[in-house]
Amino acid sequence: MAEKVNVCIVGSGNWGSAIAKIVGANASALPEFEERVTMFVYEEMIDGKKLTEIINETHENVKYLKGHKLPTNVVAVPDLVEAAKNADILIFVVPHQFIPNFCKQLLGKIKPNAIAISLIKGFDKAEGGGIDLISHIITRHLKIPCAVLMGANLANEVAEGNFCETTIGCTDKKYGKVLRDLFQANHFRVVVVEDADAVEVCGALKNIVACGAGFVDGLKLGDNTKAAVIRLGLMEMIRFVDVFYPGSKLSTFFESCGVADLITTCYGGRNRRVSEAFVTSGKTIEELEKEMLNGQKLQGPPTAEEVNYMLKNKGLEDKFPLFTAIHKICTNQLKPKDLIDCIRNHPEHM
Amino acid sequence: MAEKVNVCIVGSGNWGSAIAKIVGANASALPEFEERVTMFVYEEMIDGKKLTEIINETHENVKYLKGHKLPTNVVAVPDLVEAAKNADILIFVVPHQFIPNFCKQLLGKIKPNAIAISLIKGFDKAEGGGIDLISHIITRHLKIPCAVLMGANLANEVAEGNFCETTIGCTDKKYGKVLRDLFQANHFRVVVVEDADAVEVCGALKNIVACGAGFVDGLKLGDNTKAAVIRLGLMEMIRFVDVFYPGSKLSTFFESCGVADLITTCYGGRNRRVSEAFVTSGKTIEELEKEMLNGQKLQGPPTAEEVNYMLKNKGLEDKFPLFTAIHKICTNQLKPKDLIDCIRNHPEHM
Repeated sequence: MAEKVNVCIVGSGNWGSAIAKIVGANASALPEFEERVTMFVYEEMIDGKKLTEIINETHENVKYLKGHKLPTNVVAVPDLVEAAKNADILIFVVPHQFIPNFCKQLLGKIKPNAIAISLIKGFDKAEGGGIDLISHIITRHLKIPCAVLMGANLANEVAEGNFCETTIGCTDKKYGKVLRDLFQANHFRVVVVEDADAVEVCGALKNIVACGAGFVDGLKLGDNTKAAVIRLGLMEMIRFVDVFYPGSKLSTFFESCGVADLITTCYGGRNRRVSEAFVTSGKTIEELEKEMLNGQKLQGPPTAEEVNYMLKNKGLEDKFPLFTAIHKICTNQLKPKDLIDCIRNHPEHM
Repeated sequence: MAEKVNVCIVGSGNWGSAIAKIVGANASALPEFEERVTMFVYEEMIDGKKLTEIINETHENVKYLKGHKLPTNVVAVPDLVEAAKNADILIFVVPHQFIPNFCKQLLGKIKPNAIAISLIKGFDKAEGGGIDLISHIITRHLKIPCAVLMGANLANEVAEGNFCETTIGCTDKKYGKVLRDLFQANHFRVVVVEDADAVEVCGALKNIVACGAGFVDGLKLGDNTKAAVIRLGLMEMIRFVDVFYPGSKLSTFFESCGVADLITTCYGGRNRRVSEAFVTSGKTIEELEKEMLNGQKLQGPPTAEEVNYMLKNKGLEDKFPLFTAIHKICTNQLKPKDLIDCIRNHPEHM
């Protein structure tokens, strides 16, 4: 890396803007970082004015994080290559479907010894079925290492400065310190672990479990049953990582990316909310997405489908009865009320 | 043990009666158990009639579990020694303060090779300060091994037959099977682990964490902060067991007694509820107990005090900043709003 570490944030949505507050302040305060942080902003016109110009003049992302001032050293740049070309650290925080195309644009245009960190929760579909981790896609395309940052981190609460924790998964220990310095704040506490794949997978699988928690809520089965479903979901998350991304530590699941993010998602998240309505209303998930999410899509059901593809391939559906039942309920192969029958004889109870 | 295993339930409150439904049915269905299960019932007069007579005639504990039929092979006995004298397995499920006296009455009057299992959540004060585990008290007094059963098991939901999980902690493997057979049901799924002390300690410490979760709710700090407090509480539970009851496995905290019971307690429990009101009302905990709990006492604050006694003794308050802060808030040495400042530099973040 260069003498002063240069940082670029690729993305400027709700989460990207919230994290820009922290990253910008740290780059400004800590001598190891170049003060100027570039932020790639997809150009839009807001009331006849360019969003990049608004951000650079008012230091507010009026479209995605209204009411919060960004540090003045965060500079909005509408050209991806221009924003990224000098970066030693590239922070990816865009919708996951943009990643392959962004990587194509950046290939050969970034510093060869740059590193990346992905803040993108969820994953992409692998060719032929199953899942592909965003950090793996970035590494494959750009030929640079990619860490991940995941945790119980609702963007607006982070922007408010409410206390929370986060987990950085970084396979190569030598990048741990600089990444921690870049993200750690008084209200945003970082734990770095080496199990990067486990950290990233947790962020996707939790949404499947949240659908199960929502079904339990819809069926009015009570607190004991909900706790059992959340716990069995966690055990299946651990087992899934063990089968498909072996070598991780049990302790990683106790980090913010694991148990903490799972809890908030199973109590407060939209996968839970829509899944509850799925049971009580009798409508399809597609109908509910239109009604409740303005047409946006839930992550839990497609993730359950992609995971099911992988489990079926390995003949492992029976070892993951909760994931399997949730997928079948989402796709109308099972009734919500059959959920509990599917997990009564869970391998964890054998 | 005898050819047919004889079972006695010591206690007939809400939880004792709920578990009697399961234990009675299993004793009746499984050939290894003597069908008749005795249940020690503290005699009370209900509308001019003895509670034991009501239970034995109507098979309903009208005082503590109204609306549920107990199996007819569960026989209420008003004399403790009479109920227990033939038992191979003694199930203790009474308020913890009765245990020393009950043990004195039973000493020398039970089968010498009997075993016990405690369903009592929480613990007793040790002489001189700190905590004493109920299972240890039973073993010390009666000179018999004592297992424990803990989990996310709200009694009424168990009685309703809603699906849940539970954890049996049993140091001596050879008793694991018979205990599992006695408690396992289609809706009540048992996992047996050897870490009995860790299982029991979880049941007490979770109530401290729930106070912290309640403070966060009262302060309206949001989902991220609550998840962080629950996670840091879990990490302190693990560390506490490691210091005071060493040798347990990390996996035990993933069982129902650990993460699952903690979640339900931090979202639905009364420690959480009263602690929230403590912040929003400005009243003392004693006042709130009178108003909200009919004068019953919370377990979280005294547990926090007993734990603090142990931590102080070892000079470890700084290593458990969440437990310490919660104790100080409960005893008005700190304001609730200081909670987060106390955990910003938690050892888990170092």
